[in-house]
Amino acid sequence: MTEILSALELRNLIRSNKWTKPTSGTAPGYVQANLVMIPKEAAFHFLLFCTRNPKPCPILDVLEPGCVEPAIARGADLRKDLPKYRIYRNGVLDAEVPDVTGVFSEEMVSFLLGCSFSFETAMMANGLPIRNIEENKNVSMYITNRTCREAGPFSAPLVVSMRPLEPLQAIRAVQITTRFLLTHGAPVYLGDHRAIGIKELAKPDFGDAVTIRPGEVPVFWACGVTSIMAAISAKLPMVITHSPGHMFVSDLKDEDLTVL
Amino acid sequence: MTEILSALELRNLIRSNKWTKPTSGTAPGYVQANLVMIPKEAAFHFLLFCTRNPKPCPILDVLEPGCVEPAIARGADLRKDLPKYRIYRNGVLDAEVPDVTGVFSEEMVSFLLGCSFSFETAMMANGLPIRNIEENKNVSMYITNRTCREAGPFSAPLVVSMRPLEPLQAIRAVQITTRFLLTHGAPVYLGDHRAIGIKELAKPDFGDAVTIRPGEVPVFWACGVTSIMAAISAKLPMVITHSPGHMFVSDLKDEDLTVL
Repeated sequence: MTEILSALELRNLIRSNKWTKPTSGTAPGYVQANLVMIPKEAAFHFLLFCTRNPKPCPILDVLEPGCVEPAIARGADLRKDLPKYRIYRNGVLDAEVPDVTGVFSEEMVSFLLGCSFSFETAMMANGLPIRNIEENKNVSMYITNRTCREAGPFSAPLVVSMRPLEPLQAIRAVQITTRFLLTHGAPVYLGDHRAIGIKELAKPDFGDAVTIRPGEVPVFWACGVTSIMAAISAKLPMVITHSPGHMFVSDLKDEDLTVL
Repeated sequence: MTEILSALELRNLIRSNKWTKPTSGTAPGYVQANLVMIPKEAAFHFLLFCTRNPKPCPILDVLEPGCVEPAIARGADLRKDLPKYRIYRNGVLDAEVPDVTGVFSEEMVSFLLGCSFSFETAMMANGLPIRNIEENKNVSMYITNRTCREAGPFSAPLVVSMRPLEPLQAIRAVQITTRFLLTHGAPVYLGDHRAIGIKELAKPDFGDAVTIRPGEVPVFWACGVTSIMAAISAKLPMVITHSPGHMFVSDLKDEDLTVL
């Protein structure tokens, strides 16, 4: 199917279980989001963690306890409208399911956090290569030696995604992604990966390795996986997240998130 | 005294009760902040209110319950280092005091929110007039007919500050203040005040009226007073805020807050 879907059409397909795949590249131009659901007792501190670490955890929407319809997608239901969810119990992955209606309760708070798909679209529109998309792979992600600011029981290392670019492309990428403050914004680092504690670029901690061509510089952006690591770090009785790549697709357009 | 003080020197004068005046124009280049202290039971929803209304309530720092030393001013004590505080009980102003050591408790959470002094400095550095400073008055502030997004028990109208500028100056002011995302950022409106529910520019709801010269356009920025109105809207047993103009002076420099 090469038909171009709107966010609403895609969410309807997902809700009726007709779409179970990753959401990358679908409903182009619509903002996709990481989902984290947390018991309400811990919601202040998780919101504080996101506030203190805005580059890896940019807040798009936070719902009242028990609510499932986000302001950024009217009519949506966060319990049903993602293709796949992960349920963690006491910090350990317990299940991967297509629906969390029976698990989510009035006692939980949902967080939607920006993801890098928005700025990837803008980079491609500016003629910059996204190697992982060219090679049909998941983006390379690495755990760095930088730690996020803690909040209550939540802590995490900074996780980054990496895209190789030529020097002039890297400069342009800084300009373009700076506009996308709510989807990780400007890079957090570029150049020698060892300086941020990454041993080997060919061995990412998450996702796939991609080709780095001669003359290319690895450019690193803060990554939403940081928020997942933080959420499970507190070993709460239950945390629900999206499954990697299976994001929530909102009605926001990418340009809605730009600062300039 | 025309001596130029650092933030730390000013905080030390304040702590020893040698400085009891407003902080406007002192320790130039250092970021000044609005202070709101809230019982911890309501802290999640107040943080959510700020998150949902980032233009009037830009978060500079939020402390753990009971903590008084902010990350943005090491060694400082939020109970003593502002020249004047207001204490509200059940939503009503109860007292104005120079120290809240005896009132603040382990049960309270402190919020530091951006204020417009940072972008005023940048505007003046770019040759733009700040009429209220020229006329040695407090900035004109108005309650608009726009409402903020609510969060739990917190609600407020959008309060704006106004500075009159010539059209070309207004365009430059948009560019300059856009960089200061954490101190209210770009204007929220310019031109006909009646369209945002302001009846008469000569009668501000807070602060002083200033001269508007022929050919000048009123330019409106989101204002931190919004956060005070929201904090007291919940009629909590106790809320502590700074007194108008008597801000917390942090160790951050204005340029630390820019996005570009």
